[in-house]
Amino acid sequence: MSREKVTISPSIMCADLVNLEESVRKIESEGIDTLHIDVLDGAFSPSMPLGIGTIRALREITDMDFDVHIMSNNNEFFIKEMIDIGVQQITFHYESSTHIDRHLKLIKKNGIKAGIALNPATSLNDLDYVLPMCDTVMLMLMNPGFAADKNETQVDYAKEKVSDLYKMIQKKGLDTNIEVDGRVSLEVIPDLVEAGANMLVAGSTSLFRTERNLSENKKIMEEGIEKGLKLREDN
Amino acid sequence: MSREKVTISPSIMCADLVNLEESVRKIESEGIDTLHIDVLDGAFSPSMPLGIGTIRALREITDMDFDVHIMSNNNEFFIKEMIDIGVQQITFHYESSTHIDRHLKLIKKNGIKAGIALNPATSLNDLDYVLPMCDTVMLMLMNPGFAADKNETQVDYAKEKVSDLYKMIQKKGLDTNIEVDGRVSLEVIPDLVEAGANMLVAGSTSLFRTERNLSENKKIMEEGIEKGLKLREDN
Amino acid sequence: MSREKVTISPSIMCADLVNLEESVRKIESEGIDTLHIDVLDGAFSPSMPLGIGTIRALREITDMDFDVHIMSNNNEFFIKEMIDIGVQQITFHYESSTHIDRHLKLIKKNGIKAGIALNPATSLNDLDYVLPMCDTVMLMLMNPGFAADKNETQVDYAKEKVSDLYKMIQKKGLDTNIEVDGRVSLEVIPDLVEAGANMLVAGSTSLFRTERNLSENKKIMEEGIEKGLKLREDN
Amino acid sequence: MSREKVTISPSIMCADLVNLEESVRKIESEGIDTLHIDVLDGAFSPSMPLGIGTIRALREITDMDFDVHIMSNNNEFFIKEMIDIGVQQITFHYESSTHIDRHLKLIKKNGIKAGIALNPATSLNDLDYVLPMCDTVMLMLMNPGFAADKNETQVDYAKEKVSDLYKMIQKKGLDTNIEVDGRVSLEVIPDLVEAGANMLVAGSTSLFRTERNLSENKKIMEEGIEKGLKLREDN
Amino acid sequence: MSREKVTISPSIMCADLVNLEESVRKIESEGIDTLHIDVLDGAFSPSMPLGIGTIRALREITDMDFDVHIMSNNNEFFIKEMIDIGVQQITFHYESSTHIDRHLKLIKKNGIKAGIALNPATSLNDLDYVLPMCDTVMLMLMNPGFAADKNETQVDYAKEKVSDLYKMIQKKGLDTNIEVDGRVSLEVIPDLVEAGANMLVAGSTSLFRTERNLSENKKIMEEGIEKGLKLREDN
Amino acid sequence: MSREKVTISPSIMCADLVNLEESVRKIESEGIDTLHIDVLDGAFSPSMPLGIGTIRALREITDMDFDVHIMSNNNEFFIKEMIDIGVQQITFHYESSTHIDRHLKLIKKNGIKAGIALNPATSLNDLDYVLPMCDTVMLMLMNPGFAADKNETQVDYAKEKVSDLYKMIQKKGLDTNIEVDGRVSLEVIPDLVEAGANMLVAGSTSLFRTERNLSENKKIMEEGIEKGLKLREDN
Repeated sequence: MSREKVTISPSIMCADLVNLEESVRKIESEGIDTLHIDVLDGAFSPSMPLGIGTIRALREITDMDFDVHIMSNNNEFFIKEMIDIGVQQITFHYESSTHIDRHLKLIKKNGIKAGIALNPATSLNDLDYVLPMCDTVMLMLMNPGFAADKNETQVDYAKEKVSDLYKMIQKKGLDTNIEVDGRVSLEVIPDLVEAGANMLVAGSTSLFRTERNLSENKKIMEEGIEKGLKLREDN
Repeated sequence: MSREKVTISPSIMCADLVNLEESVRKIESEGIDTLHIDVLDGAFSPSMPLGIGTIRALREITDMDFDVHIMSNNNEFFIKEMIDIGVQQITFHYESSTHIDRHLKLIKKNGIKAGIALNPATSLNDLDYVLPMCDTVMLMLMNPGFAADKNETQVDYAKEKVSDLYKMIQKKGLDTNIEVDGRVSLEVIPDLVEAGANMLVAGSTSLFRTERNLSENKKIMEEGIEKGLKLREDN
Repeated sequence: MSREKVTISPSIMCADLVNLEESVRKIESEGIDTLHIDVLDGAFSPSMPLGIGTIRALREITDMDFDVHIMSNNNEFFIKEMIDIGVQQITFHYESSTHIDRHLKLIKKNGIKAGIALNPATSLNDLDYVLPMCDTVMLMLMNPGFAADKNETQVDYAKEKVSDLYKMIQKKGLDTNIEVDGRVSLEVIPDLVEAGANMLVAGSTSLFRTERNLSENKKIMEEGIEKGLKLREDN
Repeated sequence: MSREKVTISPSIMCADLVNLEESVRKIESEGIDTLHIDVLDGAFSPSMPLGIGTIRALREITDMDFDVHIMSNNNEFFIKEMIDIGVQQITFHYESSTHIDRHLKLIKKNGIKAGIALNPATSLNDLDYVLPMCDTVMLMLMNPGFAADKNETQVDYAKEKVSDLYKMIQKKGLDTNIEVDGRVSLEVIPDLVEAGANMLVAGSTSLFRTERNLSENKKIMEEGIEKGLKLREDN
Repeated sequence: MSREKVTISPSIMCADLVNLEESVRKIESEGIDTLHIDVLDGAFSPSMPLGIGTIRALREITDMDFDVHIMSNNNEFFIKEMIDIGVQQITFHYESSTHIDRHLKLIKKNGIKAGIALNPATSLNDLDYVLPMCDTVMLMLMNPGFAADKNETQVDYAKEKVSDLYKMIQKKGLDTNIEVDGRVSLEVIPDLVEAGANMLVAGSTSLFRTERNLSENKKIMEEGIEKGLKLREDN
Repeated sequence: MSREKVTISPSIMCADLVNLEESVRKIESEGIDTLHIDVLDGAFSPSMPLGIGTIRALREITDMDFDVHIMSNNNEFFIKEMIDIGVQQITFHYESSTHIDRHLKLIKKNGIKAGIALNPATSLNDLDYVLPMCDTVMLMLMNPGFAADKNETQVDYAKEKVSDLYKMIQKKGLDTNIEVDGRVSLEVIPDLVEAGANMLVAGSTSLFRTERNLSENKKIMEEGIEKGLKLREDN
């Protein structure tokens, strides 16, 4: 994925969960080719929005890329389920993994993009040796699984952390994707893209904003991305 | 619920998971008023078919009774989520509960029917003191969470266990419901109803059998129920 | 302990926790020789009223019998701590123990009375083989660790369960103590004693009732015990 | 296995662990065709005598029946490893299993004898529905994993529990094997066989008693078995 | 809190646990306004000195600041209990937290000072992004929960780690408090204060040293603090 | 251990597990004085090659140094078992330890060399404060416990990580051993030694290579070591 392209990854959780096929068609018709799917088990975080059965059913009806974010204490089980379903990218959390190198290899040898997800507070030093194995690093900008808590906001150090990771990637001569998730709103997109983000999980504060339709929101997102890329270039 | 009435509880897992609203409308149009919802977290059993987000969305579009079966190691969390959503019955597993009396009270004081679910191998003795508190006892006739394993079949002692429970309930002068789940096929319905079952979880071997439509399958189920009730009466 | 004697075991949790020495002196001055001590770790139940440090300090200042009730998922650790402190009786929960026979032996070979505690819903069948090894069986009449929840009440089947246990003990020709805990109020003491209870954990609904002093409450308890013993005899 | 035959199952833990091939040859030369293998993981009980690698190496050098007793909190993992190695019988513990029926089927569909193991304190009621699926029930007569503790002795209720199980099996018209483990000494063999045991785990108090050689010990065991069978017949 | 002020935080564990009110009065009368309270659950470390009930009772009798140090594997539960009691500062361990950012926010939005506690071996890099959110960082200079082990001593790298943290704080332009705990004796106070510590947990090696009274010990502590501050200034 | 000496630590797992005494004699006869022993419990990683009983039996027959590598979630239990057996070095994993400083001290005060083992992906920053306490740091160059998986290879960053650690050790003026484990083949030995490794776990890709005998393999290993040391010197 070239660094100039920024991927919009709409979160299926924000779609109409009792009419998913229709929702997917709408997203496809906007020319979006990626679907962000959160897998939570109620144990890593107190939340379990979606089931595996639903993901399997989604796989039957669309060819979009499935960008799966596992938030679990039992990563190996969920990684294997996602491989079996046939997804295009799997990220899993550093905080709940003992065998990180093992998990990355397991995903990659199945021809799937692999990545590590980091909670807001987690240091980038933990990527020291495995960054070159990652197609993507997913930075959580909000505590995962607590999105329903209205008091939760994006962390203050969001841009700083994206920027630090971008420098780390460049220093190592890599082209790892930086995916960001957690209140990635229309307002902050330019900043995050400027800092180096190139995969944006799009939810209720961007693509699914209710005061506009999908198409209009997408247009604003794209403008924000352009603005961010320009700012990045200028630095 | 009078003992003469037998409830059909269609499993939402067997519906079209990307077109749930449509599926629910079809079920409603058959005059069915109950929806069976399995909540698994991948830890009690290696399966997580459905998410809480989906159940919440279902609640928005129908007034059917939600008959929720929790299969989890963290029952209190899921019980509270289901209470918050507004369901009509919650069963949870004896095998993963330390505070059974507590959980039953928690459910009932919210005006929801409460029940204990037992794995196939679990003895009925474990109900000695809490049976009178149960609106329903759910007997798993297959190992929960392994339905996808084609080698799994209904246990040989299904009818015997239902019958034992029925006698236990009658001996105590109670009218507890006996719910059965796990390959409750058209073929075995008469037997299970005869033995005392009066809530039938209906899945791919009964209501959702693919060689007939919903309406035809329902008719056969009802005939089986009638046959079973008649046999029970004759005993 | 002869069956005719009924022991009052005042719960230290109901004493003045910042003036324990004074509280202990008051209890001693009533001629009470047993102190009930709950050990909860916040994991078996969401409660941790008292620490081990406090129990150790109590041991320094009194010769009363310490009747310790462990509610933990790590029984072996707490049993060993209590043995080290020097207590007179230890009960631990069936529901969180894999090696019940082992724990009973560990306690008894240190010259300490041993017992199994059962949650309200737990069947007496689980005592089939170890009852003869128990000096005491502790029946929880309320869900342990939830006493602070004002909605929690004594279970409806309290007297029935005590009575069943009493028959089981008599049938086996044993003289095991039956200890009861959980809203053992002045009102229900006669009934519970009649049914066979001979160790009463005394808390805020009996000995520590605030409308009377310790001495007056104790007198009413003793009257209730007498009444209960008489009723038992008459059966 | 006919009820008249009593199997001696020598525990490999008592063999010379640095010269296992030689030990196995000696046992074979006595005409013994079964080897008892304990699998402990240090978590179910604080003991891990033998590794899977060693069992795999043993499988390479002998055709004896491997009678495996799993003492673990992760039964499914160890069951699958033992199936892969190719053993003849697997017992696993009721106390650490949620999906007992599932595990029994998993073992049996691989053509291996299956059984449930019960800790000393565990009630036989827990076998109510799965007894007919068991080729063997393994009764622990000592707390599993604590054999190294010299204070541990065989439980007082050993013979009573074997006898109760024997009656339960006969009442159901089954021919389930009763395996006993835990200080099954030369002295108690007649009693245990009389009570119904027909598989004897042989360790340091019988076959491997150091004051005699293997052959002499075996002869005494066989005399004890004969005596026990005769007593059983006479009842 | 100005950097020039160094807070003495006397550990309640060292007080007279059966006469806490009297102990608190003595501490108050020395003009000390902070009480250090350790919350251990026996699972993070094999120790559970104090209960929540005791902390709640303490809250009733004094207005001192409660400086609570949680050592648990279930931080969210204990944090919520402490918020409910009404304390002034809560630190919890990095090593047992998945959702660090979440916990800090939960504490702070209740108007309570928040901090992260680090075990001796834990790297300061783990504070990379959350340091600005911390009112305090608590450095354990001894392995938490093992204070009773007489072999345990303060770690050799105590001063080095305090100093490193102090530099990190200054570099980021923050005024985060550095709290130190674990054999913070009269002898080492000057060194630790020089290195940057400004909250000293005071236990049996300082304020509660038995060869002098509280008042005398406090005076020596204050002299050590003065000496340390002076040395720090001189650097 | 002087930096010029490189220790060969042959893995007992690669020996003949049913004829260990013979295997040990062969290794001794090559003048090798160290035996590498992996302790896995099936929980940290899905593997349990060897039991504690076997290690204890090995201790009886040889005076070789036992270099034990614990891969467990319950380090304290296994450390204590190894101390009891009498081994010469114990390494345990950072990833499964809360009380690292504590464990190191526990080992060292028993006169045993202590070390931390790091999974491939784990950052060296985690050694910031405890490196001076370590006699050895064990770098896993393959995911521990997955050696049986033929797809597993040595990590690409093996040499880089050894080299980084070597610099870190030198910078701090220490002489900590660097032990490497995981496909440490004859081909990569020169590189790893050059980078700073001085303890080589020798398995099926070096000392136990089947196309040559032990003696020949050892000779090639030693040549590789010489070559590596020379390259290191030349840098």
